[in-house]
Amino acid sequence: MCLRVIKMKETIEQKLIEPRKKNIDSQEVAAVTAIEAMISKGFFEYCFDQGWRLIDTPNMTGATGACENFLTVFDVEFFGRQAYLSQTGQLYLEAFLHQFNGTFCSGPSFRKEDVVDNRHAVAFTLMEIEVANCDLEGLQKHIEGIFDYMVSEVYRKCEKELAMLGVEKAWLENFRPPYQVITYGEAIKKLGLNWGDDLKDKHEKELVRINNNKPLFVTHYPQEIKFFNMRENRQNPNVVNSMDLLLPYSGEAVGASEREEDFQRLKKRLSNSTMLKLMVEIMAKEKEYSSMNVEDIKKEAIARFDWYLDLVKRYPVRHAGCGIGKNRVTQAFLASNDIRACSAYPLNKETLL
Amino acid sequence: MCLRVIKMKETIEQKLIEPRKKNIDSQEVAAVTAIEAMISKGFFEYCFDQGWRLIDTPNMTGATGACENFLTVFDVEFFGRQAYLSQTGQLYLEAFLHQFNGTFCSGPSFRKEDVVDNRHAVAFTLMEIEVANCDLEGLQKHIEGIFDYMVSEVYRKCEKELAMLGVEKAWLENFRPPYQVITYGEAIKKLGLNWGDDLKDKHEKELVRINNNKPLFVTHYPQEIKFFNMRENRQNPNVVNSMDLLLPYSGEAVGASEREEDFQRLKKRLSNSTMLKLMVEIMAKEKEYSSMNVEDIKKEAIARFDWYLDLVKRYPVRHAGCGIGKNRVTQAFLASNDIRACSAYPLNKETLL
Repeated sequence: MCLRVIKMKETIEQKLIEPRKKNIDSQEVAAVTAIEAMISKGFFEYCFDQGWRLIDTPNMTGATGACENFLTVFDVEFFGRQAYLSQTGQLYLEAFLHQFNGTFCSGPSFRKEDVVDNRHAVAFTLMEIEVANCDLEGLQKHIEGIFDYMVSEVYRKCEKELAMLGVEKAWLENFRPPYQVITYGEAIKKLGLNWGDDLKDKHEKELVRINNNKPLFVTHYPQEIKFFNMRENRQNPNVVNSMDLLLPYSGEAVGASEREEDFQRLKKRLSNSTMLKLMVEIMAKEKEYSSMNVEDIKKEAIARFDWYLDLVKRYPVRHAGCGIGKNRVTQAFLASNDIRACSAYPLNKETLL
Repeated sequence: MCLRVIKMKETIEQKLIEPRKKNIDSQEVAAVTAIEAMISKGFFEYCFDQGWRLIDTPNMTGATGACENFLTVFDVEFFGRQAYLSQTGQLYLEAFLHQFNGTFCSGPSFRKEDVVDNRHAVAFTLMEIEVANCDLEGLQKHIEGIFDYMVSEVYRKCEKELAMLGVEKAWLENFRPPYQVITYGEAIKKLGLNWGDDLKDKHEKELVRINNNKPLFVTHYPQEIKFFNMRENRQNPNVVNSMDLLLPYSGEAVGASEREEDFQRLKKRLSNSTMLKLMVEIMAKEKEYSSMNVEDIKKEAIARFDWYLDLVKRYPVRHAGCGIGKNRVTQAFLASNDIRACSAYPLNKETLL
């Protein structure tokens, strides 16, 4: 098995970073779409093979389609009130887990990122699964299974396109499961960081480098830096039962965790979450809430999660799930440092078509 | 073959129309998602089997993701300028047809419909294909092929769910191809309408009724009421080579046509289109264009299509394509009069979660 580092051919990567207005007709962009398509095909086939249910989750939301960093939501004027473009379908997928073994979706995740660089996009395709009666170990197997399907599709169907992009096919072998696993605690020790520090891009790259450029799971993050419904570890409530998958070139490509099914814990976590705090700050600037005090706005914000909290209360099913950033997978498979090179229509504030 | 009219059980339909906050945990909503999922599976499998390329088309656009009725676009404040939520991926799919045999996508189509009723949604899943070297006849075969796959998937996998919703399985036989075809000219004659009149909901229902409640293609609409790039009929330039597929219960579920590949004709059509006229009206109200006269705004609007027009100019490939409204297909398969009953998370101005 070939473990040496591969890199997309530099001249090709440079060409692919250019705006699509200039190169949409190029063979190189066409080649990228082949890899992207087979990644989706692998994802869909794995999920259908498991008997999971594809759900079309809403792309506009009052709150329950937002991620941790509520500062990055796009506003939409929604018939006289404010709505937001969805960033995740997670909670909408979870809603069915007392009835199905698993659910999945694939669609746009909108992030208002005012940065133009090799890592940020304002919309990208997020592939998500939620699995009933599943813990972190079970979830790891599913993520590895999905990657195995994705690699196989690309391997079988994209020989010509990989060659054209100057990526050796052997590089894909790096993505065959199983993957190594370390805890957040071990990771910060290796990196000389302190407890509570988030892993930055350079840290993720370093961890992957130490791991022979192979994918690496980092588990059990501190509770306070993760999404409110990641399940508290019952032995050590400082951490959640989470796992991020780090890939070469793209870094964190999958965010995964068990989800909290204990209603009381969940409600408290939501109430204390950074997401909710940011949501309240943003709502306070909206006309509808301008005359309200912060405590009342907070109640309104929590009320937006009522439909979800109510489901957890009535159906406390153990479950776990993840979101897979499709373009980051493409980036890793294509051994490219730039997300703009790895998408048919990359979208940031400069590339609107 | 059973051709009598089937209808989803009334009490179940009424329950499904209720907001998801009330019934998201019901077996009936779960049953609907089964039909929806198999419709998507059939679509994806047909397209992959054809060797077509799945493309993730952008969900925010400067102009080239809008439909005929530009009045229904949602605005997004996009880093100091105005962007719009996409309504179609069509032009983004067409961009690759000099390189691929076909392209396809499935994603949200956003329509700012300020109406709450049994027919309107502000976002729904649109499944689209574009096929190279294809005319109307070839396209018809593909649409029928896709429906055949969709019906087969639902037939094989959703027996239990259909029974639960009170829909007889035999009803699905109505959707087996081939389908009847009539021209717009013949249709208005049957309906007692005048040339240039658009077919309203009740007219579509009447045509389907006359056709024994089976799907029906209506072809060759007047140019002026259709999207600017539908291909002009060379024998009769008053009409375009278009075909809408009308289904029982839901009416128009597929809009299809050959696309104009003659650059000069295309540019003229764009310039004279209702879409562009509406776009200019809306742009005139935006801060960025407030000091410009209408002619200059029109130039700016046309310039937003430059990347697409330029591709047509350089690669005049004959092609054709369509958009399939997934929820309308679900509605027809489930024999329901209400689109809100036929989607996991129907979205209108009252149902935001």
